[in-house]
Amino acid sequence: MRWWGWGEDAHAGGLPAHAREFLDEHVGTASAPRPPVSLEQVAIEPSALAEAERAELAAILGDENVREDHPERVLHAAGKGYPDLVTLRAGAPEGAPDAVLHPDGHEQIQAVLELCAARSLAVVPFGGGTSVVGGVAPLRGSHQAVLALDTRRLGAIKSLDTESATVTVGAGMRGPALERELASHGLTLGHFPQSYEYVSLGGCAATRSAGQASTGYGAIEKMVLGLRLAAPGGEIALPPLPASAAGPGLRQLLVGSEGTLGVISEVSLRVRPAPARQAYEGVFFEDFDSGWQAFRTLAREHALPDVARLSDEAETRMSMALAGEGGLKGRLGRRYLGVRGYGQGCLAIVGFDGSEAEVAARRRRTVHMLRRAGGLPIGSSPGRAWRAGRFAAPYLRDELLGLGVMVETLETATQWSNLARLHDEVAHAIEQSLASQGTPGLVMCHVSHVYETGASLYFTFLARQREGAEIEQWQAAKRAASEAISAGGGTITHHHAVGRDHAPWMEREIGAEGLELLRAVKAELDPAGVMNPGKLLEGQAIGSGLSPSV
Amino acid sequence: MRWWGWGEDAHAGGLPAHAREFLDEHVGTASAPRPPVSLEQVAIEPSALAEAERAELAAILGDENVREDHPERVLHAAGKGYPDLVTLRAGAPEGAPDAVLHPDGHEQIQAVLELCAARSLAVVPFGGGTSVVGGVAPLRGSHQAVLALDTRRLGAIKSLDTESATVTVGAGMRGPALERELASHGLTLGHFPQSYEYVSLGGCAATRSAGQASTGYGAIEKMVLGLRLAAPGGEIALPPLPASAAGPGLRQLLVGSEGTLGVISEVSLRVRPAPARQAYEGVFFEDFDSGWQAFRTLAREHALPDVARLSDEAETRMSMALAGEGGLKGRLGRRYLGVRGYGQGCLAIVGFDGSEAEVAARRRRTVHMLRRAGGLPIGSSPGRAWRAGRFAAPYLRDELLGLGVMVETLETATQWSNLARLHDEVAHAIEQSLASQGTPGLVMCHVSHVYETGASLYFTFLARQREGAEIEQWQAAKRAASEAISAGGGTITHHHAVGRDHAPWMEREIGAEGLELLRAVKAELDPAGVMNPGKLLEGQAIGSGLSPSV
Repeated sequence: MRWWGWGEDAHAGGLPAHAREFLDEHVGTASAPRPPVSLEQVAIEPSALAEAERAELAAILGDENVREDHPERVLHAAGKGYPDLVTLRAGAPEGAPDAVLHPDGHEQIQAVLELCAARSLAVVPFGGGTSVVGGVAPLRGSHQAVLALDTRRLGAIKSLDTESATVTVGAGMRGPALERELASHGLTLGHFPQSYEYVSLGGCAATRSAGQASTGYGAIEKMVLGLRLAAPGGEIALPPLPASAAGPGLRQLLVGSEGTLGVISEVSLRVRPAPARQAYEGVFFEDFDSGWQAFRTLAREHALPDVARLSDEAETRMSMALAGEGGLKGRLGRRYLGVRGYGQGCLAIVGFDGSEAEVAARRRRTVHMLRRAGGLPIGSSPGRAWRAGRFAAPYLRDELLGLGVMVETLETATQWSNLARLHDEVAHAIEQSLASQGTPGLVMCHVSHVYETGASLYFTFLARQREGAEIEQWQAAKRAASEAISAGGGTITHHHAVGRDHAPWMEREIGAEGLELLRAVKAELDPAGVMNPGKLLEGQAIGSGLSPSV
Repeated sequence: MRWWGWGEDAHAGGLPAHAREFLDEHVGTASAPRPPVSLEQVAIEPSALAEAERAELAAILGDENVREDHPERVLHAAGKGYPDLVTLRAGAPEGAPDAVLHPDGHEQIQAVLELCAARSLAVVPFGGGTSVVGGVAPLRGSHQAVLALDTRRLGAIKSLDTESATVTVGAGMRGPALERELASHGLTLGHFPQSYEYVSLGGCAATRSAGQASTGYGAIEKMVLGLRLAAPGGEIALPPLPASAAGPGLRQLLVGSEGTLGVISEVSLRVRPAPARQAYEGVFFEDFDSGWQAFRTLAREHALPDVARLSDEAETRMSMALAGEGGLKGRLGRRYLGVRGYGQGCLAIVGFDGSEAEVAARRRRTVHMLRRAGGLPIGSSPGRAWRAGRFAAPYLRDELLGLGVMVETLETATQWSNLARLHDEVAHAIEQSLASQGTPGLVMCHVSHVYETGASLYFTFLARQREGAEIEQWQAAKRAASEAISAGGGTITHHHAVGRDHAPWMEREIGAEGLELLRAVKAELDPAGVMNPGKLLEGQAIGSGLSPSV
């Protein structure tokens, strides 16, 4: 992974000329390119880890697994959120872990956490490092030093039960590695977040991740059947039961704990037969309302596809202009022109996974219902284009940052009866914030995950960067959006998790007593408060300067 | 509800002669009928509630809503488990609440709980009173007195959002009342536990209840989108979001809390369109293994019906002999005889809910797959018979108790790869326990809830009562079964909840630190420990004499 951005250089695509023109016209770009500094130029403080404690850690992990070198510390200095990338590219991250630990399994993690609690060393669990909400920010809290605990070496399948369709993996296992292994048994997990190529399964469980096919496969919370947690206060192991009524749902209490309670070291997941056939296609709707109403009907009638996405008018327009040649634009162009008579329109992508017969039957029924609801099927090329480009957005973001363009995404979910209102209020709040800063931008949205009772809304916004005030600009827009979401009855996050950026809104989300309850849980498992300080439950005290209005 | 048993006299059916003969031959009955004593003969201690505290409660609730009369206290003296009924029928319940409270809403409950915490009064939340695991036993713990808190007056819909398909109900709302109201909007909850006719929705949420159609509709934990909890330490309100990644799953932490954390006062539930058509039918399998393997295949291929039940050989045989004339026997008799050539066989019931077209398509696909897996469809009369008798078993239990026959049910769930072994081990453990007590019995089982990765096992056993040692007899069998389940990798309960009877096995279920974590949660919400003492988290100290072997 590029330390200053996403992915690998070899996979990065350039921005096509027409997209660059569109940006110049509608958003504005910097007068000169804004490339990242070189790695050596990144300034971080010397490690604060004392030699005695380093030696204790090395005694558990081995000397080579307690890393304090500059590249390793920079690679663990931040996640992949917009403020992370802005500060990294400038060579001025807010901080860096004093050391990076590489344990090889649950027992080493347990030993390390007990030591860290005793020595007042903060621990930031680090899986794929793909958090976009400050979840891996190396915050020290009130402790002596802060250590990143990288789960990379816990990267293998622990056991596979093909009869029950469950797999237990080490927390550091990457999405593609798991899918490759499962494929050799004719199985799939079916979890494909946009960060899929780098994401760790432990990180997915810790952050309540949702994949692009979650409408059909369910978000990670539906897949986690069991898990193992190492925590300073003790360890918890929950086997992969299909169901249980044995008291409160401990599994779901640990899913979403974001490293603040301990480190999820192993995860047991439900898997499914790998689909023999995947059919993904485009459907146009006259407007956003008719599109989501059609999705709502599918949800009620149990006719939802596995992938269900619906771009609003702004996103439909934008995705034509911004996508690279391999993306939506190149393949959809003529078709799109051909259906212009259908109004400006909103593009939906619906995708079906399964056996040939199953996909054919489900597709027929669903497409029939979408037609009846006003949808215009436009064939499989938009589906193919979307699939080809589904993991490309983070690369595109790097390109835009190089042009001096802020691009950020945020998401929520709400009931159907509140969807249209929330969509409009959040979009308006972001637009207002950008305009009031003298950088009017583009705000767009799509529905990406559909439930029986509602759906998610995923917003993307772009604006010319305020050079020298990039973070303030972002904070203002992010705060405006979060306020609109929270006041408008949405959840503060549908699948990005809370991390640092959403923590100030947690009290509104679950109430004062709900927050106290989670703090009591933390006090039991992490009495010294060393686990991932400043995230999830500590939004008021510190952080990125975000806070709800009073 | 009959104070000494189930339901209303008008709905109770007698035992047909052939069933009585079967019992005499295979189980043994008492030499003389064993009717319940009269209500007046039930002996309970005088109320221990002090006058000053009674007055404080009355100041909150109104005088008429603090009941200390004998019938009301007896009606709240126990749930509907086997030991409950044995002691009630004998006129000697273990205890009774000192008073029964009837609050009218969340605010009154909150005020009562704060008062009870201050005055050291234990509180037992009481919904339908249908617990079969001692969940409403009036245990005082170390407190001055114990009060039942009846949620009956919270019996109405608070709000209905037909667009989002969600409903918010008061905790005391009964299943049939909710279904009636929903039906007038073309909706259904789809939650039909065997206790459906008397069950409260708050109780369902508090106990992780599963309904007979849970394979399709999901257990209550899948339906609960939001809830409101009144607790001595504060209140928690969680709105009915379709999904959220905002930290640990608080909703699922409160679902299954069994009144030990507070009182769930309101529940927001997902509802669905009422099915235009319901098709329920019988399928025979050669043996239990081929039956559950067929269900496993359906689960993998997403071809599960909404109702999926499979009786083992013993239960298939028994259900013929014991069912009343309106039940399975009367309607299935000839058919069953006709297929005897198919071996002794195991009867499955598969049921589909939906539109005409949807049911037809699903049924066709599923039945085709069941045939391919060795199933023999035997038409809709077994399905109709099962539906007609689906809520009758508790009435039948009352009949058997009157004949001196112990009948008990217990349940677990496990992964597919462990299902056959666990089935055999638990059945064997119960058989051994009964035989070793000189009362060899009948043990049978069915799969009642099917998941992608496994299924539930629901055991029923009958034996002649050991007169004068009924509780010891039951304890021995229950302990043997619980040991076998816990040692065999099953959950200690799939849908009956933990209550008092399963509490001693909770540490094995979730580990020592898991239990400590739940106790920390309780300490936050119920620092005085007044909420439902002796249940869920307090299995070692007190209770019914059950305990795991060391």
